[in-house]
Amino acid sequence: MLISLSEAAEFLKNCSDAVIITHQSPDGDCIGAGFALKDILEAIGKRSRVVCADEFPKRFDFLTSAGCGEEFEPETIITVDIADVQLMGKLRELYGDKVQLCIDHHVSNTGYAQRTLLDPHASAACELIYELSQEMGVELNEHAAACIYTGIATDTGCFKFDCTTVRCHEIAAELMRSFDINFSKINRNMFDVKSIGRIKLESAVLELMEYYWDSRLTMICATADIMEKMGVDTDDLDGCANLPLQVENAEVGILIKEREPGVYKISMRSANDINVSEICQTLGGGGHAKAAGCLLRGSLDDVKKRLAEAVGKALE
Amino acid sequence: MLISLSEAAEFLKNCSDAVIITHQSPDGDCIGAGFALKDILEAIGKRSRVVCADEFPKRFDFLTSAGCGEEFEPETIITVDIADVQLMGKLRELYGDKVQLCIDHHVSNTGYAQRTLLDPHASAACELIYELSQEMGVELNEHAAACIYTGIATDTGCFKFDCTTVRCHEIAAELMRSFDINFSKINRNMFDVKSIGRIKLESAVLELMEYYWDSRLTMICATADIMEKMGVDTDDLDGCANLPLQVENAEVGILIKEREPGVYKISMRSANDINVSEICQTLGGGGHAKAAGCLLRGSLDDVKKRLAEAVGKALE
Repeated sequence: MLISLSEAAEFLKNCSDAVIITHQSPDGDCIGAGFALKDILEAIGKRSRVVCADEFPKRFDFLTSAGCGEEFEPETIITVDIADVQLMGKLRELYGDKVQLCIDHHVSNTGYAQRTLLDPHASAACELIYELSQEMGVELNEHAAACIYTGIATDTGCFKFDCTTVRCHEIAAELMRSFDINFSKINRNMFDVKSIGRIKLESAVLELMEYYWDSRLTMICATADIMEKMGVDTDDLDGCANLPLQVENAEVGILIKEREPGVYKISMRSANDINVSEICQTLGGGGHAKAAGCLLRGSLDDVKKRLAEAVGKALE
Repeated sequence: MLISLSEAAEFLKNCSDAVIITHQSPDGDCIGAGFALKDILEAIGKRSRVVCADEFPKRFDFLTSAGCGEEFEPETIITVDIADVQLMGKLRELYGDKVQLCIDHHVSNTGYAQRTLLDPHASAACELIYELSQEMGVELNEHAAACIYTGIATDTGCFKFDCTTVRCHEIAAELMRSFDINFSKINRNMFDVKSIGRIKLESAVLELMEYYWDSRLTMICATADIMEKMGVDTDDLDGCANLPLQVENAEVGILIKEREPGVYKISMRSANDINVSEICQTLGGGGHAKAAGCLLRGSLDDVKKRLAEAVGKALE
C-alpha cells in the first residue's frame, strides 16, 4: 500500500521501536538514510537499530562509527532505499515478509512492504528522510544532517547528474545553514579519492581504449589474456563501465569483459541522448536508457564489429 | 574605491554602454560572468561587448556562441573576476588604467579599478552577477541563467569544495526552478570528460606515483627524461598537480617538474588541514594553505628527500 508523507510520519511517531534495514552492498544513500532515521526515532524516544546484510564500507565510518544500536527484539521493521526484497540479501529470510514500512525513491519498487512511502522524483532516499523529519517536527542533529547530505550527494554525483532536483539544492542549503557539516571532506572522500590499486587498475584499463566513429563511440576490451597479464581480476572491473565515457565527444561507451572463451559481457553507457537500452535490445539485452548491457558470443573481432555497427546506426 | 552592491547596480543602470573584460586563460566563471552581465545590460538597453585577451575554449561554445557583441568605442570599461590588472593579458595596455568597475570575489584583488564590487565570501564572480541582477530588478534570460550556473559550478567544483556557500545552493535552486538549464550536460562537459591526449597523459603520469609516510604523502616526479620517453611536453603537466591527491589517505600531494638539469619546480597540494604554504616557505617558496610551490636545486634524490622530510615534520 502506498502511503503519503504525513501517513508515514504518523506511523513513525506511533511505532514503539524499529529495526531499520539498508540494502546489501550499502552506499552513501542507504547508510545515510538508515542512520539519520535512527537519530530521528531516538530523538522522539524510540529504541532503534540499523542493520545490513553486508558490512558498511570503511569510508562511511564518519556516519556509522557512532554505532548501529544495541540488539533487541523489534516490533517494527523498516527498510530504506530498498526497491526489491532481494536487495535485503541474507536478511531477507528473517525480515523479508515482515516489513511494515519501506521508504524509497526507486520507480521500480516492487511494493513488498505493508506500507511504502515512494517518491520516484526524489533524488535520494535521504531526501525523503529529510522531508519526514520536517513533517514529524523533529529537529535534526549534526550527525543526521551529515547523513542526509551524504545520501543526497551520493545519488546526485554531488549535484551533477540529471536526477538533481531543486529540492536537493534547497535541502543542502538548509543543512549547511543550520549545521557545521564538513561537506568538502565528505565530498573528497566520496568522489575524489581512490585506492592505490584502483588508480593502477584504471590507468591500465584506460590504455586499452579504442575509438570508433570519430570517438563518438569508445570501447575498452578487457580480455582474460590482457587482464591476467596486467594482474587484474575481472571482478575488479566492476565500476569501470563509465571509464570509456571520460573521452570528450564520446556519446556511447562500451566495456567488454570476457566471461569465458567466446562469451563477452557488454556494458554500454550513454552520455547524452542515445538510448543504449534500445541498442542492447537489438543485441538480445536491455537495461536503462543511459546504462544497459547484453551478452555476445563469437570471436572478439566479430563482437566488436557488431557493437560498432549497432551503435553506428543509432549515431546516424 | 570599494562600492556596495546597490552602488554597483546604480552604476550599471546609469552607464551608457560597456566593454566587459574577462581574464586571460578564461574559465567558466569569468566567461559566465561576462556573458551574463552582457545579457543583463542588453535587457535594459545598453550596448555591450565581451572581450578577452585569449580565445574562449571550445567547450564553452554553449555560452559564447551567441556572440560577444559588435565592436564599438565604449564609454564604460568593466572587468569581471579579474583580481589584478596583469590578468587582463594583452588588453592591459588598452584598458588597464581605464577600468571604471571591477566585479570580483578574490580577496587578493589589488583595487586597480575606479570602483570595485568585491565580496571575498562569494564562491564565484557569477554569484555577484546574480545578486546584481536581483538588485537591478532585471529578469534573467535562459542564457544568462546557464552562464551563472556554469560559473558557480566551475569555482565550487560542482558544489564540492570548501568555498561552496549556502547562497550557491540557493541560487542553483532558483535558477533550476525558473529555467530549463541542461545542468547535467554542462557538468559532464566541465567535470567528467577529458581529451584523448589528456587521458593518455594522466595514465602515464599516474604510473610514476611514489608513496611516503604510509601514503600520507604522494609524489609524482616528472623528469625531463621520463617525459621525453612518454612523449609528453612538460607544459602539458599543468593541471596534473592535483593528481597525487587522488590517492585515498593522501594528505599532501607533490608534483615535481624538472625545469632544467638540477632545477625542479615543486607544486604542493593539501587535502585537509596541513598548510602547504608553510611547508613551502621553509623551502624558500610560498602560496596558499592548500596549494603552494617552490623551486629546489640539487640532485633529484636529494630534492625528494628534502621534500619528504619537510612534509614528514608537518605530518607529525
